[in-house]
This record gives sequence, structure tokens and C-alpha cells, in this order.
Amino acid sequence: MAVRGKVAVGVNGYGTIGRRVAWAAGLQPDMELVGVVKTKPDYAAAQAMSAGIPVYVPGEAEAERFRKAGLEVSGTIRDLLREVDVIVDATPDGVGATYSKLYREAGVKAIFQGGEEASVAQVSFSALCNYDEAVGKDSARVVSCNTTGLLRSICAINSAVGVRAVNAFLVRRAADMHEVKRGPINSVVLNPPRVPSHHAGDVRTVLPWLDITTAAVVVPTTLMHVHYVTMKLKGNASREEVLDALRSSPRVLVVSASKSGVEGTSQIIDAARHIRPRGDVPELVVFEESVLSKGDEVSFIQAVHQESIVVPENVDAIRALTGLSDGEQSVKLTNYALGIGKLPGLSL
Amino acid sequence: MAVRGKVAVGVNGYGTIGRRVAWAAGLQPDMELVGVVKTKPDYAAAQAMSAGIPVYVPGEAEAERFRKAGLEVSGTIRDLLREVDVIVDATPDGVGATYSKLYREAGVKAIFQGGEEASVAQVSFSALCNYDEAVGKDSARVVSCNTTGLLRSICAINSAVGVRAVNAFLVRRAADMHEVKRGPINSVVLNPPRVPSHHAGDVRTVLPWLDITTAAVVVPTTLMHVHYVTMKLKGNASREEVLDALRSSPRVLVVSASKSGVEGTSQIIDAARHIRPRGDVPELVVFEESVLSKGDEVSFIQAVHQESIVVPENVDAIRALTGLSDGEQSVKLTNYALGIGKLPGLSL
Repeated sequence: MAVRGKVAVGVNGYGTIGRRVAWAAGLQPDMELVGVVKTKPDYAAAQAMSAGIPVYVPGEAEAERFRKAGLEVSGTIRDLLREVDVIVDATPDGVGATYSKLYREAGVKAIFQGGEEASVAQVSFSALCNYDEAVGKDSARVVSCNTTGLLRSICAINSAVGVRAVNAFLVRRAADMHEVKRGPINSVVLNPPRVPSHHAGDVRTVLPWLDITTAAVVVPTTLMHVHYVTMKLKGNASREEVLDALRSSPRVLVVSASKSGVEGTSQIIDAARHIRPRGDVPELVVFEESVLSKGDEVSFIQAVHQESIVVPENVDAIRALTGLSDGEQSVKLTNYALGIGKLPGLSL
Repeated sequence: MAVRGKVAVGVNGYGTIGRRVAWAAGLQPDMELVGVVKTKPDYAAAQAMSAGIPVYVPGEAEAERFRKAGLEVSGTIRDLLREVDVIVDATPDGVGATYSKLYREAGVKAIFQGGEEASVAQVSFSALCNYDEAVGKDSARVVSCNTTGLLRSICAINSAVGVRAVNAFLVRRAADMHEVKRGPINSVVLNPPRVPSHHAGDVRTVLPWLDITTAAVVVPTTLMHVHYVTMKLKGNASREEVLDALRSSPRVLVVSASKSGVEGTSQIIDAARHIRPRGDVPELVVFEESVLSKGDEVSFIQAVHQESIVVPENVDAIRALTGLSDGEQSVKLTNYALGIGKLPGLSL
């Protein structure tokens, strides 16, 4: 049962995103993590239980599997839904949609991930672009990691100098650490093998007015996505104006290779591993010396930690749906609770 | 001694490029491969000897090393230079410049690679862009693999519809197969960690009038470079006009993912391995479904086989310097001798 004055949160799915969102919600002063839903009694389930997080299962069959593995669950998802105000759905791509009826019938507000179709929720969400549109809604979809990364820089620069059009090339990581069957291991693969990729349309679920083209390849690396972004601005802007806009954003880190020695994604993650839980970097990282301005056009290279960039957005979406606070306040609270905004050694 | 009526060719350096250029020159009806220069008695040296190619060394010290390894060399580089009309320098980056005086003093025309400064030679060279500028010169520098790739598509599209400006993002392979100490193995590294990269300036050594920006990262793969190219054209052009321009180029392969099933670099090389010596793909590969046109702007994804794309350019440079034939004829001869232009299964 929810603690008085706190929003009661459940998380369905306990993989890359679910584990992080459960952890992050549990750290917010205005939220209480009631429990998580897990389908298999694997190492992640055992870790949740040993951390004192109540674990629920989809149904009786899974409860029996857990029992056989020596793990006692706290009930089924229906039990959890009776205890929470908001459920964050972090199930695999496309599975979230199959749960939406259940969430609605339970009268629980629902947050979905970017792997679902936009139609799964009333609004697609990116905290620094359209927080207000989600306030009071029953459901929101946090856009995917790549889309969140694109929206971070687009909205930061758009607020400061105005953006007319975007052309972005995405160099995607092949797999997360636990995904042992994904590739490629020695190929650069068009993903998808046609242009534009779906990311342009996904950005437009949040910024419908934007002229944007995206293309993507996937490469043999696990750590971060990398984007080459070219923007046509509403007027001329100097390199410093663009850098100021990015530096002013509460979820962008501008990293200087010459000052920090960081020239690639593995160095970002290595620095984070010494300071941040799991080595997460929920900020969008922009490489300072890559920023090039030319009249009304600016281009730069940015990196997206695919495992964690949407985590603060999920936390903010909980506040938006439940009306806990306004956008500026929510971003501040989330950043403070998660230590986002400064990464010693990188943000100089 | 040169065979009557054939240009006598030597190759200094027998690594990634040298081995291929030696092979390619030996296949031309109007050229004779006199010998190659090698510094170490390794597997490549043994393979050259077993293929009947005379192997020379820089000096007496190396000759002694070869003797100790049981390999008898044909002489030193000074001996080779007395026998050839043209030397192709395929030594490591920057080493070529240290040989240029020797070549000049021997009265031998010299071809350098893109790892040298442009000032090493009288002209920077790309066969389908500026063959005529190299005719009769004493030295030429074949631009690097990435620059050659960029120039292939730029010059093809420029001839057909006119190019005003180019913005290209290069996703570079980390190492060739024999380079066992190069990385990264799990990182996307800005290479260089600032924009623009040197490739823009290198393209301008051949097309000084072009407005071009380039940025580059290196990724953990060995097979091919991949470029995302956006061009501002001199006027509007349809997707089909651009595709026709690319298809008409004798050294571009337009590959359809939907027709061939090829979606990435490893599939290109796998197809080539069944048909081509060493699995080489000296053509620039453009992914058909990546070509997107929008008014006077066109973008597409292309792949560059870094080990072989400059090989036909070196052969053509030999003909240009020695005045053996005009550009069109040389490209035809080279393509015919090397089987360039069609790759069954890919060029449909």
C-alpha cells in the first residue's frame, strides 16, 4: 500500500530499463516503489529479492517456476496493480501493448517505452520537449533511447536559437551486455536497410512540426549509440551560441576531448564506472570539438547511453501523469536524486 | 629489364596496398611487374617469391636478414630503380616522402599513396575526377581509400547533375586483417576528435572548388568503411537521376538490399569472397534503398573496401604519368583486367 503523500509505482519488466527505473523511482522523495513484475527466476529476479524489492509474476504458472527455483513471489501482476498509482511498463518491444487493457481496467496510469507503437499511449514523451502535454494524462510513452537523445539536443538548440530541419545519421550499438545472441560482430549493417529510418517519425511524435531525416547503421559495440547531427537553424548562430544552448540543458554533457582526453564512447563509460551506479550516463554527451557552425547550419557528434538515457524521462513521466509537479521542478528533482548533470572529469 | 612496349613497374612496400598493386600491374596487358621491395622476410615476402615475383630490399642489412631466413633477394631498391619506368610507393604513411629524393635521382616516375602529404607529388589523383591533370607528370599521389570513395560518388553525381556542397560522416573500420595491434574493440572513437576531419581537405586536393565538410569515427570492424553522404546539388534532381548517375559510373556498384539481401558490409565481402581474388571490392558500393532525394539535396550510404579501392587508381596513375593512354581508355583497360564493374549477385 502506498506511503501517505507518495505516488505508488510498480514496474512491469525487469530488464535493461525496468531494473534502472525501479531503482530510480525508489530514490525519489515523492515516490514509493511497491514492486516489480518478472517472468523468469533468473539472476535479475534474485538480485531484486535480495535488495528487498517485492517481486510479482504475470500468473500462477510463473509463480510455480519461481517456487521451484526456491524464490517466493509477492503475488501476480493483478495484485500489484491494486497497490499502485502508476505502472511503468518495461516489457520487451511490442509486449507493452498487450498489457494496456489490463492497466486501464485496473484504473492505473501507465507509462510505456519507445519499443511500443505511439498509439499505445495518449502522448509520446520527452521531459525537456513536451512535459506539459503529459500532465494529467492516463498514459504516456517515453520515446526510445535514440529518439530521446535526438530530442535532447534538438529541444535545447531549438529553445535557444530555433531549429528548422535536422539530418541525423545514427551509429547504433549492436547489443546490451546481457543480450548474448545479438550481432553483428564484424559488420556495419544498415538498420533498417532503407532511408529514412523510423527515428525521424519517432521524433515527430513529440515535435510534429519538425523537418527531419534519419538514417542508421548498427556496428559491433555494446556501450553507446553515436549520432552525427546536422541542423538547419532559423537564423545564423555562432558555434559558441550552440555550445551555450547545449551546456545550459540540464541533461546534456558537453565533453571536451582536449581537456578530458575523452575521444570515444568507451572512455565516457569508463569514467562513469568509477562514479555512477552501473556506469550509467543518462545525460546526452556532445563532443565539444565536433561542434561546427557554418552560417545557419550546425553539425556535431553526440553519444547516447542506450541503457540509461530514458530512465530520468520515465521518472519525470510519473510526475507528469500524476500531476506531482511541473516540468522544471520534476527535472530538477530527478536530476538531484540520480546525480544527473555533472560527471566529474567529463563536465569541466 | 622492361619487356618491349610495356611500362616497367616496381612496387616499394608489400603490405595491404603494395601486394594488390603488384598483382594488378602484373595483370595489365601494357605493364610488366619487375619486382617489389620488402623490408622483412615474413609470410608476404615468402608468398611473393613463391609466386615468382623478384623481391628487392632497401639495403644490405635487410638482404642479410632475408638470407638468414633462407630467402634470396634480387638486389636492393637501387637495383630495382634502374630497371623500372615507374615506382609505386606503398610504404607506410609518411615513409614514402623519405624515398621521393631517391626516386627523383633515379629518374623514375613515382606514385605515392594517400598517407603522404599532398606536397609529396605534383598532383593528387582520382582516375574519374582528374586523370588528365596527371598526364605526363613525374609524380602523383593516389588519395586515400576514404577520399577515393568520396570522390567516386561526388564526381559521378557532379558530372550528371552538378554538386555544390558535401557533408559526409565517415564510419571507419578499425584495422585491416594483418594489423593485430590496432583498436578499438569496443568503442566508437572520434577520429580525429574534432570536426572537420582531414578528409575534406584531402578531397579538395583533387576538387579545390568544392564546399565540403567531413567528420569521422572509427568502429570495431575490419571489413569496410561506411559513409553517410549528404550533397547539395546545383539544382533539383530526382532520386532516379542520382541513381542513374551512380549506376553509370564504371567504378560504382549500386546494391539493392531488397533484391540481393545485402544489408551490411560483411555480406558485400562474403559475396566477393566467392568470386574475387582476396574478396576484394575495388568498386564504391552505394546502398540503393538509402538514396533519398529532397529538392536540391540528396543523401545516401556508401561502403568503401579500404584494402582495394585505390588499386585500380594506382594502375590508372601509372598510365597517366607515362602517357600510355587517355583516362577513359585506362579505366576500361584496368576494369577489364581486374574484373571491376560487375559483381554477380550484387550488381543486378
